[in-house]
Amino acid sequence: MIKLIDPWGSTLIDDYNKLITDFHLEVFDAKLFPKPNRIMRRGVVFSGIDLKVIADSIKKKKPFYVLSGIVPSGKKIHFGNKMVVEMISYFQQQGAETYILVADLEAEAARGIPLEEGRKRALEFHIPAYIALGLDLKKTTFYFQSDNIAVMHAGYKYSKKVTEAQFKALYGSAAPSKIYSALTQVGDILFPQFEKRMPGVIPVGVDQCPHILLTRDIANKMRKEKFFAPSATFHKYTPALSGNFKMSKSMPESMIELPEDPKSMCKKIKRALTGGRDTVDEQKRIGGEPEKCMIFELYKQHLIEDDKKLKDIYERCKAGTLLCGEDKENACKKMTEFMNNLEKGIRQARKNIDKLRFVK
Amino acid sequence: MIKLIDPWGSTLIDDYNKLITDFHLEVFDAKLFPKPNRIMRRGVVFSGIDLKVIADSIKKKKPFYVLSGIVPSGKKIHFGNKMVVEMISYFQQQGAETYILVADLEAEAARGIPLEEGRKRALEFHIPAYIALGLDLKKTTFYFQSDNIAVMHAGYKYSKKVTEAQFKALYGSAAPSKIYSALTQVGDILFPQFEKRMPGVIPVGVDQCPHILLTRDIANKMRKEKFFAPSATFHKYTPALSGNFKMSKSMPESMIELPEDPKSMCKKIKRALTGGRDTVDEQKRIGGEPEKCMIFELYKQHLIEDDKKLKDIYERCKAGTLLCGEDKENACKKMTEFMNNLEKGIRQARKNIDKLRFVK
Repeated sequence: MIKLIDPWGSTLIDDYNKLITDFHLEVFDAKLFPKPNRIMRRGVVFSGIDLKVIADSIKKKKPFYVLSGIVPSGKKIHFGNKMVVEMISYFQQQGAETYILVADLEAEAARGIPLEEGRKRALEFHIPAYIALGLDLKKTTFYFQSDNIAVMHAGYKYSKKVTEAQFKALYGSAAPSKIYSALTQVGDILFPQFEKRMPGVIPVGVDQCPHILLTRDIANKMRKEKFFAPSATFHKYTPALSGNFKMSKSMPESMIELPEDPKSMCKKIKRALTGGRDTVDEQKRIGGEPEKCMIFELYKQHLIEDDKKLKDIYERCKAGTLLCGEDKENACKKMTEFMNNLEKGIRQARKNIDKLRFVK
Repeated sequence: MIKLIDPWGSTLIDDYNKLITDFHLEVFDAKLFPKPNRIMRRGVVFSGIDLKVIADSIKKKKPFYVLSGIVPSGKKIHFGNKMVVEMISYFQQQGAETYILVADLEAEAARGIPLEEGRKRALEFHIPAYIALGLDLKKTTFYFQSDNIAVMHAGYKYSKKVTEAQFKALYGSAAPSKIYSALTQVGDILFPQFEKRMPGVIPVGVDQCPHILLTRDIANKMRKEKFFAPSATFHKYTPALSGNFKMSKSMPESMIELPEDPKSMCKKIKRALTGGRDTVDEQKRIGGEPEKCMIFELYKQHLIEDDKKLKDIYERCKAGTLLCGEDKENACKKMTEFMNNLEKGIRQARKNIDKLRFVK
């Protein structure tokens, strides 16, 4: 079995190795791609499916697409969304045709948000936030699920290609709502190919893996259609500040939402789990453990772009010269700057919302 | 337990009593309705759900609707469709708003018929056949499932209201294709109420009972929507000429399709199961058994409008004065006349196809 190697030796790595084993995933190889971005270089994007065809498309300048969906439920996004946008942005720069769909049907069925309200939220918040995080709107085609009759037709058609047992194996459930939601997503993922067959890559958190596997299976079963089975990148979760595997709304004290008020956020950061020792003296003497530190994870995943600077922090922590108090102050400053920029970016992007290109 | 009484004592009645027990259905009471039609009067419509609200709407001239779907798969219909049209026609005459949908999504997913082909078949054959059988197109609103985005939205939304276990109990299956098909049908059945809440009646063969029960359940669960749970009439099958419970394509020799070439049809009629005795002498002496005769079933369900004439045939058979050979000749003549009129009616109706009122 191939195992992940985390260049920074994060103690969370075991969980990802387990995911790779459980889902039979491939280990992500950043060397496949030109100029990999921060999360690709650092093993935050840790796995993928069928990425050679995407790397080839980039190399040979052949058409390919990147696609993602926005569920316009709350009025916040999270670090997982941020990483999705960073991957979309990366592929956009490498020439991908880009599709963003607003999953308003999903938001209505699963969260009771009326279609009109979902549409409003997407236009006022989610899409501007994506643009603020780096989505190039000029290169992006948008649609609302509820407008896309071709996707709805597709879901109905694909229902004939899957069994109840398959749903149970993939999702642990064959509930009717799960079936509708999943088959509509399969339609979404294949939609860019309805007019033109081409490879596509879907950047997702690893919890979305079943959707990718289902879509690949259906794409392969629709022989006459000659679809490309979609590729995917999987990124890790941003761990909870308490050290848990992932941030969760059920534990708001160890979760940072986007955007979040800097004051409350800094308070949370100050209570975060670090790799610090029992006493300052001990830490100065034997050094800290950045691989156990949630602040360091935030740096690695989100706050520090420059690999050298990240390495420097790692080494200063190890050497016992950078202590947790100072480190948390720095993290708070960087995160505050990030949040302020995000808020500003969202306000700015809202002004351009009439420039979005929507298809039906 | 209430049992059906068949005024003509058909030996097939036991199977329907079993259906009534199994599905907890109500026995149909023709006296609820003004001027009941042939199949209502004769117990061919043998059961229903919640029909008082429809009878009341008729009596008080309040709005209600009748709805049915056409699956444009083959290029033939059958006696079941004919009975549906007769019930629609009855309710139209009693003031019902009428909706006919073409289930082209169903035909595509279940039978592999491309949407364009399904549309073509519906316009060239199925809708003209319905008109020929008595559908008043001036009082009818049509739509294609694939055009009706509101129905597709509804199916998605309703998926949250049902469980896998419920599907298994109702259909014996929770296959994804079954779920899509059924929830789209629920959307269809409730569609006339999207704009205006009103009672509705769905005339169906008893095999469609699960759809009615599912729709009623969902309508009741969507409390905020204040839908009327739909009513239904259930008619018996036209039995196979061999005496089987229903005609089936798997036994073409004992099935009559609509339309069918009179020559082949008369050949089948001549081989039909009757209530005749072993010898002509015996039959003259002790009389035939019309309650076991498939020709008599055809008269009762389809070929003889006048109750007195039907009674006369019944009695002459019983008395041994009407023998099977003569009877089959008569049936063949009547059926030939019916088929010729149907073909003529279809040709005529095709000319009016541009007068159909379609909604999206």
